[in-house]
Formats: sequence, structure tokens, C-alpha cells
Amino acid sequence: MNYMGKDKKFVEEITAMETDFAQWYTDVVKKADLVDYGSVRGSMIIRPYGYAIWENIRDVLDAKIKETGHSNVYMPLFIPESLLQKEKDHIEGFAPEVAWVTHGGDEELHERLCVRPTSEILFCEHYANIIHSYRDLPMLYNQWSNVVRWEKTTRPFLRSLEFLWQEGHTCHADEEDAMDETLKMLDVYANVCEEYLAVPVLKGRKTEKEKFAGAVSTYTIESLMHDGKALQSGTSHYLGTGFAESFGIQYSDKNGELQHVHQTSWGITTRLIGALIMVHGDNRGLVVPPRIAPTQVMIVPIAQHKEGVLDRAYELRDSLKKAVRVDIDASDKMPGWKFNEYEMKGIPLRLEIGPKDIEKNQVVLARRDTGEKEIVSIDELNTKIPELLEEIQKNLLEKAKDHREKKTNLAMNLTELQNSLNDNPGFVKGMWCGELACEEKIKEETGATSRCIPFEQEKISDSCMCCGNKADQLVYWAKAY
Amino acid sequence: MNYMGKDKKFVEEITAMETDFAQWYTDVVKKADLVDYGSVRGSMIIRPYGYAIWENIRDVLDAKIKETGHSNVYMPLFIPESLLQKEKDHIEGFAPEVAWVTHGGDEELHERLCVRPTSEILFCEHYANIIHSYRDLPMLYNQWSNVVRWEKTTRPFLRSLEFLWQEGHTCHADEEDAMDETLKMLDVYANVCEEYLAVPVLKGRKTEKEKFAGAVSTYTIESLMHDGKALQSGTSHYLGTGFAESFGIQYSDKNGELQHVHQTSWGITTRLIGALIMVHGDNRGLVVPPRIAPTQVMIVPIAQHKEGVLDRAYELRDSLKKAVRVDIDASDKMPGWKFNEYEMKGIPLRLEIGPKDIEKNQVVLARRDTGEKEIVSIDELNTKIPELLEEIQKNLLEKAKDHREKKTNLAMNLTELQNSLNDNPGFVKGMWCGELACEEKIKEETGATSRCIPFEQEKISDSCMCCGNKADQLVYWAKAY
Repeated sequence: MNYMGKDKKFVEEITAMETDFAQWYTDVVKKADLVDYGSVRGSMIIRPYGYAIWENIRDVLDAKIKETGHSNVYMPLFIPESLLQKEKDHIEGFAPEVAWVTHGGDEELHERLCVRPTSEILFCEHYANIIHSYRDLPMLYNQWSNVVRWEKTTRPFLRSLEFLWQEGHTCHADEEDAMDETLKMLDVYANVCEEYLAVPVLKGRKTEKEKFAGAVSTYTIESLMHDGKALQSGTSHYLGTGFAESFGIQYSDKNGELQHVHQTSWGITTRLIGALIMVHGDNRGLVVPPRIAPTQVMIVPIAQHKEGVLDRAYELRDSLKKAVRVDIDASDKMPGWKFNEYEMKGIPLRLEIGPKDIEKNQVVLARRDTGEKEIVSIDELNTKIPELLEEIQKNLLEKAKDHREKKTNLAMNLTELQNSLNDNPGFVKGMWCGELACEEKIKEETGATSRCIPFEQEKISDSCMCCGNKADQLVYWAKAY
Repeated sequence: MNYMGKDKKFVEEITAMETDFAQWYTDVVKKADLVDYGSVRGSMIIRPYGYAIWENIRDVLDAKIKETGHSNVYMPLFIPESLLQKEKDHIEGFAPEVAWVTHGGDEELHERLCVRPTSEILFCEHYANIIHSYRDLPMLYNQWSNVVRWEKTTRPFLRSLEFLWQEGHTCHADEEDAMDETLKMLDVYANVCEEYLAVPVLKGRKTEKEKFAGAVSTYTIESLMHDGKALQSGTSHYLGTGFAESFGIQYSDKNGELQHVHQTSWGITTRLIGALIMVHGDNRGLVVPPRIAPTQVMIVPIAQHKEGVLDRAYELRDSLKKAVRVDIDASDKMPGWKFNEYEMKGIPLRLEIGPKDIEKNQVVLARRDTGEKEIVSIDELNTKIPELLEEIQKNLLEKAKDHREKKTNLAMNLTELQNSLNDNPGFVKGMWCGELACEEKIKEETGATSRCIPFEQEKISDSCMCCGNKADQLVYWAKAY
């Protein structure tokens, strides 16, 4: 890394993750130009690079949402207070964190409007209007929108006053069909995380304590960050008929009898960008997996003032453009500066080309994930670059899986749990009797919460990690964002 | 139209536009499943078909916004009241129509937050943070988002409490560059309207009275609806250095001297869907131009219970899928019902295929725009359908141009203007002296507002239509949405 010397100052600008992980995160978010702060506490400005990553995640997921038969719609931003009251568990869960509109222009409103924290209520009101017969089912809707939650402590992408997301809302004739949908969309989320974001996820069910306000059951994908904390990365809820009963969403079945619909809802958010940063990032900055990288290859001309260098670099860009997302930095900044800049931004491949390379009909390719450099003939670039990008994609997922494995431990009792969280923070597998009291005690004493009851169960013991009573459920525990 | 008899009831469900244009509009919006109403006054639920049209408009425009060098970003939903106060003309223009958030959870906020009616303020605060040098310019940002305006009277798409839009915000080193941008984006808008929506537009400048709050000058594209009212369909503003001075957005030029940036902003909204409806719709419902139609061809099987019909229909769909956006309605509803349904939805082409057609290796193609039916050999479909779609696209634009021409009149004085608005409502060209008093008098006496000072000027007289004084500007006047 011969350029390190010249630009050392720049590299040192971000805190090492071992020194202060939270500060490292904030530094990366700012230095990689993902986010800026505005004057509303807890809000974020998503900058072009951050937004381009979000657009790529959105486009991948949107295609899958459509392929699975869903239609996009758009619901209003505001929910009248009286409407919000209709589903009791739901309002209890969300009331403490909603923003209220009380005035329109100079007038005080007769009824306060809540800025949507989620849109179950609005979808339900609409469904009650448009669903009549079993022929209308399943009704499979999705919405891409912003939502607002009045959080006390906020961090960009992870927890913010406003965030972007998609929320699916569907109605089905019976529980079986609704459960199929709930789990199908969880699989879609897991697929996007693993195959595109290269973020491995655990699939499972949330405990009663941790489920969504108003749901019968909540399913989750959980990922593990570099610091050993878990991140809930997407959830899918089976809502049963509770909302349908509150809102009168009924259909007449084949025998002409009125039935309540069974509902689901599911969402992922800009939080996934947080996962991306904390799973793949390192002390040189962000690392973006090729499949969702806005720029997959950055061309950095060397000695670009010399005749022919820029021309050749632009030619290369134009010829690579058909196969990959490629850009060039032909600004008059020093190559060392550029190397650091695009490492900070986590661009998967850097392509260096200078006068000597041109003579030899070659370029240098530098991988962001491993730091390896390779000299490649220009004639081979069109096959070599897509191959390398796939290799990087795969490597990132493998590395993240290894990391998760190394940070997944077993605990037979609270002392082992506590030790594990101290010595090697990560997921801890432990048996649970199913009692809320134990779940609460574990959280109080260790700070770890139940992340999920994984679909892949193992029996590591017969007794609850907390109370020692009979237990037949394995739960993943962790401290979490 | 042999199916008219059977399903007459359905067709009669929408009001004729000649009887009550406003009711016709509302009927189309509802019956074509574009919109439903929720419980917040003036808000709209954009249903799958309406949203799919919006997605197509958005995708076309977004590609052009990116091609012209702009990046998408995302700004917060809320603007603190003190920040909004910073630009005086701007706040005066928007204050009467903003929604105010006063509470977060149970707490009253120290400072009210306005729900963005537009985001100049937020972009300006950000630009002041990130622009330092002439090397940072131009800074070309765009955002796709929802905005809220507390309107008293609302109509779906045309004027609603909340709508979806894009807002471009750019910073430039000097006036010339900023003006180039302002007019370039106006051209992009005009291109999208004419080439994709088949809505012809007039390009011109707004008068001082009608310009955007805080702008130096506002440019507009104006279109003419079927009832002869005008619709402002997109605007592009040159903001000068006013916002930059209020927010301290400065850059150091090549000589190291601090300069204020010159800014622009520009936007189009879901209102364009309203234009689409009112320019192309008829008494059978919506007519969607092929280039933005979510479904370009709807296959309606005839006598589908007969052996082989559905198989052949699905085969056709699969073979057409590569070239056009095609769907099939294989539900057990009557063909007559389906014909009406997809005419109401304005799907450009209907493809009928029944047992006799299959025998003869042919189908029937029915055009939504002209109602013409044509028998076409199945072997020719892959070339014939794209051709027909292009013809329909062209025809819609031509028809709309003809309509506009027939509804564009001249007036030399207020009586002529009034007569013209009564006898043949539409655009009226008239000379204007440039005085606000005349503009206001014209509005008071006739209800017509100045739509724009068109780029293509003509001199139809020397004297102001209102006061008779010397006038050298031709203005388009009209009643408007």
C-alpha cells in the first residue's frame, strides 16, 4: 500500500472500530458521504451515495415483491386519532412514538392527525371498502414510503425520527394462506439480505414480548454486526383476524357466508444500510457488496497528465459500461487521495491505469475486500471483472458467515450467558422455558434480549437457561441495536 | 360495438363529460380504480392502477434526470419553524398552507415543525454545509417525495392535501449556468409530457404575480384540458441568489473570492395523472397513452370454456410479453363486462381471441382511442402490435394538439376575452402591458388568469387587452385548475 504514507492523515480521520465502534460507525457514515445532519433532531439527510445504495436495494426488492404478485399503492401520510384508536394493542404500541399534527395553516384542527408510524390502520380502512367476496382474495398490496417514529435516541439508518421503508399489507381467506404469505415474504427478505447485501441472517419467530403491536405472531431475520450486536433486519407479521374485526374487513365465502379476512404485514427499511456498514465495513471505511454497489469499478488514471492516459481510461470506461457499473475519477486530485476516497466509499474494485500499463496493454485491479492487487491484460477485462465482482460478493458473505459463527456461543445458565457476552459478544444460544419472567430477568441481568426462536431448532439442554425448569425451545439471545 | 347492449348499465355509470365535467372526472378516477378516499379530508389513496401509471411517469423522468447529471437524495419531512422563517418571500407564500407538528409522543415540542410543502429550505441548509469551492459546482440534486399543502378545496391528483412529486434543487456558479439549467429542465418536462403522456404543452414564463414564492423567475408548461381549462403541468424556477444570501451558501471562486451560488428548483407531481385523464379521457372512461400504460394490451378470451381457447390465449400472452406489456383476463366474467372494464381503464389495445379466430389463426385487435377493430393474423402480431401502439401514441398527441388549437382564441379587449371564454372556453391570446393592475382586473372580471408569457411570441396588436395602453407582450389567458 505505497500510497498510505502520502495520505496517512486522511486515513487516520476515522476512528478505529476497536477503539470506539459507535464513533467508527458515525465516522464512516459521514466520511463515505452517506448521510448529513439537518436541523431537526434525529432526522437524516440521505446523500447521493447513500440514496443510490438505497435505490439499488429498493429495485431488487421491488422486483421480487412484484414477481410474487403484489401491487404497489400509496396511502396518506396522516392518520386521524380516532381511526388509530380502533385497534387497541396497536395504538398502545405506537402512541408513545408518534408525531401529532394539530394545525393546518392558521387553523387548529378539530381532530389531531398522527404522522404514520406504520400504515396497518390506513390499509385496513381501505380494505374494508374494497373487499367484498372471496374472489377479491388474496389482496396483495405494498407501499414504499417514509414513516415517522418519535425516538429519543437516534443514529443514522439504525434508529431515526423518519426513515424510508416498504410495508406490505395483505388479506387472505384463511390462516393457512396468510401464514404462507408471512413466511414467503420472510424468505424474500432473507434472500435479498444474503444474495445482494451479503448479510447472512437467522430466520425465526419473535417471542410474545418482542412481537409487533397487534400481531398474532412476528417472524424476523436477525443479523450480527461486527461488534457482536444483533440487528433486526426485517420482520413479517401474521396479524390474524384482529384488525379485520376492528375494521370490519369481511368477505362472503363460496357459501355466501361472511368471514373476516386473515392479514399479514411485513417491512424492511433504510436500516439495512446500517447492517451493510456494520457487517462489511473496516477501518478503511465502507465495503459495498458488488451486487448493490452504485459503482462497482472505479477507474483511477495514474500520471493522467501524460499523453494518452485519459483517452485510454475513458475508452476503458466506455467498453466496460455495458457489463458493469463503472465510473472514472479524472479530477486533478492525487491518485493517493482517490485511492483513499474510493476505499472509504467501499467501491468493490479499483482499476489503475498509467503510462506503463498502457505500454503493456494491462491494468492493475485492486480489490476492496481483501486489498489484493492483480495485473490483468486489457483484453481479459470484460471477463475478468465480472468474475472478480462475483468472487468479492461471495467472499463477503463467507466472511460474514465465519464471523457470525465465531461469535455464536452456547450458554447453559445466566453466568455462562454473561461471560459469553463479555468475552466474545455475539449471539448466544440458550434454552428457554417460555416464561415472560425469565425473558425479562435475562434482559435485566445481562442486557441481552431474545432475538428469535430460530426455525432450525437444536436441543442443547432440557432446562431453561434462567430458571432451570423444563425448556424445549432454543432461543438466540444478544445485545441488539 | 355489439357488447354495448348487454352491459349498457355499466357504461351508463359514468356521467357524460358534456353534462358535468367535474362529476365525469370524479367518476373516471373512481371507476378506473385510480383512487379511493380515506378518512383524512383531501387525502387520496393511490390504488394499484393509478400508482402503476405514476411509477411509469416516474421511471421515464428519473432516467432523464439522471442522464442530465443529477443525483437523487432524500431530505427530512419536517422543517423547524425558525428555519422556514429565513427566506421571507418564501415563508409568506407557504405559511397559510402548511401542516404543523406540535407534539412528539406525549411531549409538546419547544419549536413547531412544519411538514414540508416543498424543500428549498432544507436543501439550502444542506448546501451551506457542503459547498465550499467552485469545484463543487454545479451541484445537481433531485428528490422524489411526498409533500403536504393544507388546501381548502381538493380534488384527486389536481389539488390534494398530500401529493407525490420530484423536486430538483441545484446550485451554480453564475446566473447563466443556472438559467441554462432552469430552461433545460423545463424542456425535459415538456418532452415527458409530449412524448410519453401525449399531452401537448405551452412553454413560457410566469408573470411576477404568478411566480413561485422566493423565485426571480418561474417558467411553466401549461396544458389544456378537455373542458377548456388550463393546467399548470410543471414549473422550473430560477431562484437567483436570494436563498443563498439568506442561508449563506457561498463558494470561493478561482480567485479565492467568496461568491453566492445561483440556484434553481423545479418540480412535477402526481397532478400529471390529472392531465392525462382530462386530456385523453372520454365518456367511456380513461385513455392511457401506450408509452406509459401499465398494460398496453389486454387479452380477452371469447368463449373461453371451449377447448383450447385459454391455452392459446396464454400462449399468445407469453409470446407477446417480450415486446409489450400484456395481460390476460381469464376470469369467469362475461366478455362484455371485460370490454367495458378495460375501456374504462383506458388500456390502449384489446386483443380478442375465440374458437373461430383460433381456427383461422387470427385475433381481433380493438383500439381504445378510435374504437376501430381489425382482424390480424397471429403470425403478424409481433410486428403489428408495436406498430399500432406507436400509432395510438401519435394519434393521441395529434388529437390533443387539434383540440388545443380549436380552443385557442384571440382577444383584443375584455369583452372579446369574456365572449371567448363563454363561447369556446380554452386559451385566449391577448396583449398585456405588464401592469399588475390589469392582470388583477382581468382575473376579477373574467375569472381567467395569466397562464404564461409564451417563449414563442406573436404581436397580435399594440395595445393591452385591458387598459389599451402600449403593450408588447403576448400572454396566454385561461381559466385554470
